[in-house]
Amino acid sequence: MTYTLEKIAEQIGGKVSGDGKIEISGASDLQNAQKGHIAFLINNKYVDQARSSQASALLLGKDWSDFDFDIPTIAVENVYSSLADLISIFDVEHSGDFHISSMASIARTAFVPDNCSIGPFAVISEGATIGEGTRIYGHVHIGKNVRVGKNCLIYPGTKIYRDCILGDNIILHSNVIIGSDGFGFAPLKDGTFKKIPHIGNVVIEDDVEIGANTVVDRATLGSTMIRKGVKLDNLIQVAHNVEIGKNTVIAAQAGIAGSTKLGENCQVGGQAGIVGHLNLADRTLIQAQSGVTKSTKKPDTKWYGSPAIDYDNYLKSFAIYKNLPDLQSRILKLEKLLDQSRSS
Amino acid sequence: MTYTLEKIAEQIGGKVSGDGKIEISGASDLQNAQKGHIAFLINNKYVDQARSSQASALLLGKDWSDFDFDIPTIAVENVYSSLADLISIFDVEHSGDFHISSMASIARTAFVPDNCSIGPFAVISEGATIGEGTRIYGHVHIGKNVRVGKNCLIYPGTKIYRDCILGDNIILHSNVIIGSDGFGFAPLKDGTFKKIPHIGNVVIEDDVEIGANTVVDRATLGSTMIRKGVKLDNLIQVAHNVEIGKNTVIAAQAGIAGSTKLGENCQVGGQAGIVGHLNLADRTLIQAQSGVTKSTKKPDTKWYGSPAIDYDNYLKSFAIYKNLPDLQSRILKLEKLLDQSRSS
Amino acid sequence: MTYTLEKIAEQIGGKVSGDGKIEISGASDLQNAQKGHIAFLINNKYVDQARSSQASALLLGKDWSDFDFDIPTIAVENVYSSLADLISIFDVEHSGDFHISSMASIARTAFVPDNCSIGPFAVISEGATIGEGTRIYGHVHIGKNVRVGKNCLIYPGTKIYRDCILGDNIILHSNVIIGSDGFGFAPLKDGTFKKIPHIGNVVIEDDVEIGANTVVDRATLGSTMIRKGVKLDNLIQVAHNVEIGKNTVIAAQAGIAGSTKLGENCQVGGQAGIVGHLNLADRTLIQAQSGVTKSTKKPDTKWYGSPAIDYDNYLKSFAIYKNLPDLQSRILKLEKLLDQSRSS
Repeated sequence: MTYTLEKIAEQIGGKVSGDGKIEISGASDLQNAQKGHIAFLINNKYVDQARSSQASALLLGKDWSDFDFDIPTIAVENVYSSLADLISIFDVEHSGDFHISSMASIARTAFVPDNCSIGPFAVISEGATIGEGTRIYGHVHIGKNVRVGKNCLIYPGTKIYRDCILGDNIILHSNVIIGSDGFGFAPLKDGTFKKIPHIGNVVIEDDVEIGANTVVDRATLGSTMIRKGVKLDNLIQVAHNVEIGKNTVIAAQAGIAGSTKLGENCQVGGQAGIVGHLNLADRTLIQAQSGVTKSTKKPDTKWYGSPAIDYDNYLKSFAIYKNLPDLQSRILKLEKLLDQSRSS
Repeated sequence: MTYTLEKIAEQIGGKVSGDGKIEISGASDLQNAQKGHIAFLINNKYVDQARSSQASALLLGKDWSDFDFDIPTIAVENVYSSLADLISIFDVEHSGDFHISSMASIARTAFVPDNCSIGPFAVISEGATIGEGTRIYGHVHIGKNVRVGKNCLIYPGTKIYRDCILGDNIILHSNVIIGSDGFGFAPLKDGTFKKIPHIGNVVIEDDVEIGANTVVDRATLGSTMIRKGVKLDNLIQVAHNVEIGKNTVIAAQAGIAGSTKLGENCQVGGQAGIVGHLNLADRTLIQAQSGVTKSTKKPDTKWYGSPAIDYDNYLKSFAIYKNLPDLQSRILKLEKLLDQSRSS
Repeated sequence: MTYTLEKIAEQIGGKVSGDGKIEISGASDLQNAQKGHIAFLINNKYVDQARSSQASALLLGKDWSDFDFDIPTIAVENVYSSLADLISIFDVEHSGDFHISSMASIARTAFVPDNCSIGPFAVISEGATIGEGTRIYGHVHIGKNVRVGKNCLIYPGTKIYRDCILGDNIILHSNVIIGSDGFGFAPLKDGTFKKIPHIGNVVIEDDVEIGANTVVDRATLGSTMIRKGVKLDNLIQVAHNVEIGKNTVIAAQAGIAGSTKLGENCQVGGQAGIVGHLNLADRTLIQAQSGVTKSTKKPDTKWYGSPAIDYDNYLKSFAIYKNLPDLQSRILKLEKLLDQSRSS
C-alpha cells in the first residue's frame, strides 16, 4: 500500500515542500530509511544524517524548514505528535473485520456484541460485558461481572479478575494482570499470617495503556483507581487501593505500594519505588531507581535517591560522594596540621 | 445477602455493644461506608472519621470500647485478624460447586478427583495429581508429574513446570511461574555459554500465597524450597536452589539470587535484592530497595542500603549524605583558616 | 535408567580413576547425593564434604586429581562445562516424539512442519512459520507472520507478537513477551499523550535463552535486536529499539531503556537499570542494582551505584559513607580545636 506525499500531509496536517505527488510506501528512521520511505528529523543535530539518508521524503518541524533538503518535506508543528499519526498510516494491524472465535469460552450470561473480536481460547465469564469495537485476543481471561468498554485492545494472555471495570480506548498488553488480591495479611501471635480477603476491585478509566506483565492489584475494599490517560510501562507493580492521577506516566519496573495516591501528570522513572499510604502532588517527577518515602503537597517537585530527596540536592551530594576518599584525606591532613601547630 | 450484627460477631468471635439485630449487607472502610455496611477502626486517630461515617456498625479493638459511638459496635482482640474474617463473610467468590471444564486438556494418566475444579483451556499433564477441594482456573498449565495438594487456588494463566510439588491451602495468583530453569551457564573459552540443565524441582509447603507474575525457578539438582506459610507478593524473582524459611514475607519486585537461604519470619521490602549463596538468620528485616551482600548469623537484625548495612547506621550516614555540600564547605573553611593561621 | 561410570566419562570427555564399571543412577550435589549418584566438586574447599558424601562417584577438575578419594572419580578440564553435559545425561524432558495437538489453533496459512510439537491451546497465526525440531508448548501465542527457527523450545504461555523473527536453538521460558509495543508517546499541549504506534519488530538470533516473564518490546521502526548467544534471566525489561550484543548475560529484574546498545560479552547484574540512548562497549560489567547513565567507549570497565560510577571508586566511597557520622565528628572536633587555638 502506498500513499502520495500530499495525501500523507493532508492526513497528518502538515505542509509539503517539493514534489507532493511522489508515492510513499513506508515510514522509517533516518538510518534505516530506504527508497520510497518517509523518514523523520526529530532534532536538528541529525541534519547531516538526513542529507545522506536514502529516504524519499522527510517529516520535520516547521521551524526547521529553512534547512535546504534535496528531497520533498512535510513540515509540521509538533514532530513527535505527527510522527505518531504518520506511523499509524502504515500500521494496519488492528483494523479489519471483527471475529468471535468458535474456540473461545463465552458464558451464556456474558454480553458480547457482534462488532467486537474474541480470540481463540479466550474466556469470557458469567455476567461480563464487552463493549463495541473492542478486540480481545487469545488466552485472555475476563472474570465474572467484569465490564470492558468500547474500542479496547486486550492482548493475548491478559487476565482480568472478577468485578473490575474498564473504560473505553484502553490498551492492555500481553499478560497484564488486573485485579489480583492485594498483599494484605494480619500477623498472628504464633508468627503466622491470616489472609485479608480482597473484595474491592480495579477501575481503569478511558485512554489508559498498560504494558506487558504489569500487575494492578484489586482494593481490599473499594477500588484501585487508574485515572484517564494514564500510561504504564511493562512489569510495573500497582498495589491495592492505589490511585494514579490523570495522565501520569510510569516507566518499566516501578512499584507503587498500597493506598498511595499519585496526582495528575506525574512522571515516575524506571525501577523507582513509592512506599504505601503517601500522597504525591500533581506533576511530581521521580527519577529512575528512586525510593519515595514522604508525601508531597507542592506540585512540580523532583526527587532522586533512596530514600528520595530533592533532585538537585541529591546530585550535589552525589558529586561529593564520588570524591569521599579525597574529602577524608583532606580531613586527615587538617588533623595532622592542627596537631603539629598545637604541639609546636 | 445480609447478616445480623450478632451473627457476624459470633462468626468472628467479637462482643456486640448496641443493637445486634440490625442487618449488615457489606464491609467497607470508614470513608466509603454506606448505610447497611460495617466499617472498621484500625487506629484511634480515625475516631472522628468513624463518628461521621455513614456506616451502620463498627468493628473495633476491645481497648477502644470506651469511645462512645452512636452506632452498634463489635469489639475484638485483634482488629486486623478479625477484619480478615469479617471480609471473608462477604467474599463468596471461591465457594460454590466444583466443576471440571470439558474444554480442559487432562491427560489420561493424571489424577483429578471429582471434588475439584478445572477451568477451560487448563492443561493437566501426564502423571499429575490434583488434591480434593483444589480450584484450578483457566489457562493454567500443570506439568508432568506435578503434585498439587488439597484446597489450593490456582488463578488463570499460572504455569507449573514438571515434577514440582505443592502442599495444601496454597494460593498462586495469575501467571505465576513455578519451576522454570535456573539461570546457570558454564562459560566456555570462546566467550559463549553452555546451558546447565536443571533437573531439580520446586517444593512449596502448605499455606503459601504467591502474587501475580512472580517466578520461582527450579533447582539445578535437588529442590528450591518455599516453606510453610511464606507469603510472596507480585513480580518477585526466586532463583534456583533458594530456600525461604517458614512465615517469611517478601514484598513486590524483590529478588533472591541462587542458593540463598532465608530464615523463618524474615521480612524483605519491595525491590530489595539478595545476592546468591547467602544464609540469612531468622527474623532478618530488609528495607525496600536494599541490596544484601553478606550472610547474617544473628537473628533480628535490620538492613538498609545497596550494599546493605545496619539500618540505623545507614540512616545516620544518609542524614549526613544529604548535607555533604555543607560538610565540604566546612572543610574548605577549616583549610583556609588553618592556612591563614599558619601564614600569620 | 542407569549408566556405567565409564559410559558417562566417555560422553562428557573425562578420565576415570577407580572402578569404571559401577552403575550411576543420577547426578547430585555433595550434600544431597545418595548411593548410586555421581556428585561434583566445584571448588577444592569442599574436599572434606566430598570425602563424607554418600555419592558413589565424583566429577572433579583434573588439577584436583591428586586428592585421594575412596570412590571412583571422573577428571575433566572444565568442571562447570562438564557438569552441564553430566546433568544432560539424566535430563530426558525434551526428547521424545513430536506431536501436534488437535486442540491447538493453527491458521491455514501458517507453516508447521511434521517434525515439530505444538501443545494444546497454542495459537499459530496467519503466515507464521515454525522450524523443524521446535517444541511449542500449550497456551503459546505465535502472532501473524512470526518466524520461529529450528530446534527451539517455547514454554507454556509465551506470547510473540506479529512479525517477530526468531533464529535456531532458542529457549523462551513461560510467559515471556516478545514484540509488545514500546513505551512511546508524544506529549500534547493539554497534558495528554498521543500513542506512537510501533510497527517495527524484534529479531532474536540463534542460541538465545530468555527467562520467565521477561519482556522484549518491538521497535518503533526497525528492529529490537537480541544477538546470538545472549542469555536473559527472568522478569527483565528490554525496551524498544534496544540492541544486546553477542553472548551478553543479564541477570533477573534488570531493565534496559529504549534505543540503548550493549556490546558483546557484557554482564549486567540483577535489578540494574540502563537509561536510554546509550552505547556500552564490549565486556562492560554492571554491578547489581546499579543505574547506568553514561555511554562507555572503552571495553572491560566495571560500574556500580546509582548513578553508576567506576566500581572500585564506588566501593571506596561507600566505605567512607558507612562512617560519615565519624567523619562529621572529626570535622566538628577540628572546628572546635581551631576555634580554641584562634581565641587563645
